[in-house]
Amino acid sequence: MAQSNAQELEQCIDNCQQCHEVCLRTALTYCLPKGGRHAEPSHIRLMLDCAEICETSANFMIRGSDLHRLTCGACAEVCDRCAEDCEHMGDDETMRRCAEACRRCAQSCHQMAGHAMAGAGMR
Amino acid sequence: MAQSNAQELEQCIDNCQQCHEVCLRTALTYCLPKGGRHAEPSHIRLMLDCAEICETSANFMIRGSDLHRLTCGACAEVCDRCAEDCEHMGDDETMRRCAEACRRCAQSCHQMAGHAMAGAGMR
Amino acid sequence: MAQSNAQELEQCIDNCQQCHEVCLRTALTYCLPKGGRHAEPSHIRLMLDCAEICETSANFMIRGSDLHRLTCGACAEVCDRCAEDCEHMGDDETMRRCAEACRRCAQSCHQMAGHAMAGAGMR
Amino acid sequence: MAQSNAQELEQCIDNCQQCHEVCLRTALTYCLPKGGRHAEPSHIRLMLDCAEICETSANFMIRGSDLHRLTCGACAEVCDRCAEDCEHMGDDETMRRCAEACRRCAQSCHQMAGHAMAGAGMR
Repeated sequence: MAQSNAQELEQCIDNCQQCHEVCLRTALTYCLPKGGRHAEPSHIRLMLDCAEICETSANFMIRGSDLHRLTCGACAEVCDRCAEDCEHMGDDETMRRCAEACRRCAQSCHQMAGHAMAGAGMR
Repeated sequence: MAQSNAQELEQCIDNCQQCHEVCLRTALTYCLPKGGRHAEPSHIRLMLDCAEICETSANFMIRGSDLHRLTCGACAEVCDRCAEDCEHMGDDETMRRCAEACRRCAQSCHQMAGHAMAGAGMR
Repeated sequence: MAQSNAQELEQCIDNCQQCHEVCLRTALTYCLPKGGRHAEPSHIRLMLDCAEICETSANFMIRGSDLHRLTCGACAEVCDRCAEDCEHMGDDETMRRCAEACRRCAQSCHQMAGHAMAGAGMR
Repeated sequence: MAQSNAQELEQCIDNCQQCHEVCLRTALTYCLPKGGRHAEPSHIRLMLDCAEICETSANFMIRGSDLHRLTCGACAEVCDRCAEDCEHMGDDETMRRCAEACRRCAQSCHQMAGHAMAGAGMR
């Protein structure tokens, strides 16, 4: 279940890169200008946290590091939190797309980290 | 000639991200294991320099920063140097692909930086 | 005037690292919670831009790259803009300290980049 | 035992920044030029992994993120591996200093992550 092969690794890199870009872009060009709860420090901070750990996690995999399970483990949990936060913003298509990118990244990172699927998103 | 619109900006982000990934991956998983001139400190350093300024340059554009011309300007010149270095590695398909990614990124970054096309790669 | 020796290089690395830390910390833990003009997207973006190019510029120098003049050149200009922005926030001790870190970093980066001193901070 | 207060947090940021700088500098300006086992891909990769997760971990703390326990947890384990690798390079003062920076960073990151001290460095 937690096996990783070359194809899954490349998919995880893609998912991390997508999530990095969406979180950074959304935080700066959508959430901050929109204001209100979208611009709350805790939300912006979480979006920036998510963008950065995704970047780092992707870089570990791109370098071919066997320690990527450690960064993927941290990344999966940060992405789960960020997805939740985005989902709680209400009826907002942009945040929904951001949450989807976070969920996709979290899922493949949990897998890379060797987390049992049942535990994904539950720690 | 040096006009930038939204589509060119997105293309430049893509080119920077591709170049970042190819340089980092090639340096660690191809050049270092291959050894010889591929593993010379000056070449590995240049590949890492190129990967990092591409990442930073992409992030400026993703954030929607109007200062991206500054990072694109630096990025274009680093990419030109890295392309040259890769091209001088001889008959090597992997390095040729890396050089292509660097040239593509350099070209769009020169454009973003507002460098006149005639001067691209010549400073 | 634009000579760089080992000691100036180490000082420039320190200045970049200090500026990175102050800008990132101030943006997230002071400006965003304070709100108003401190939390305007353009200001937060500039603070994040400044933090990131300082990090990248420091890394080029730490790697011993002779291309650091390119990243230092971009860094110096971003720091000058960020210092100005912080100085315009009015009577605010925290922003004043941030501006000082930016000015210090800009000055040593202009020097590293080989910019004539007369032009420092004036572009 | 795993309590963290403001002073420990600032110390951990310092330790991460020191470890980042020492690993990146040593890998590029000492290990690669020295060649032999110092320049083996697995060692250079680990040094770059360590430098990057230290940078990311420091940035989470600088942003005031309460998710820093996740990045500190990953950072602590990467630093422990890197310290071991550096210690196995034999009678080498430069690698010994690098190992010390890694151990210092690992210790404070384990503490930040809430790892029981008995388990530090033993996973």
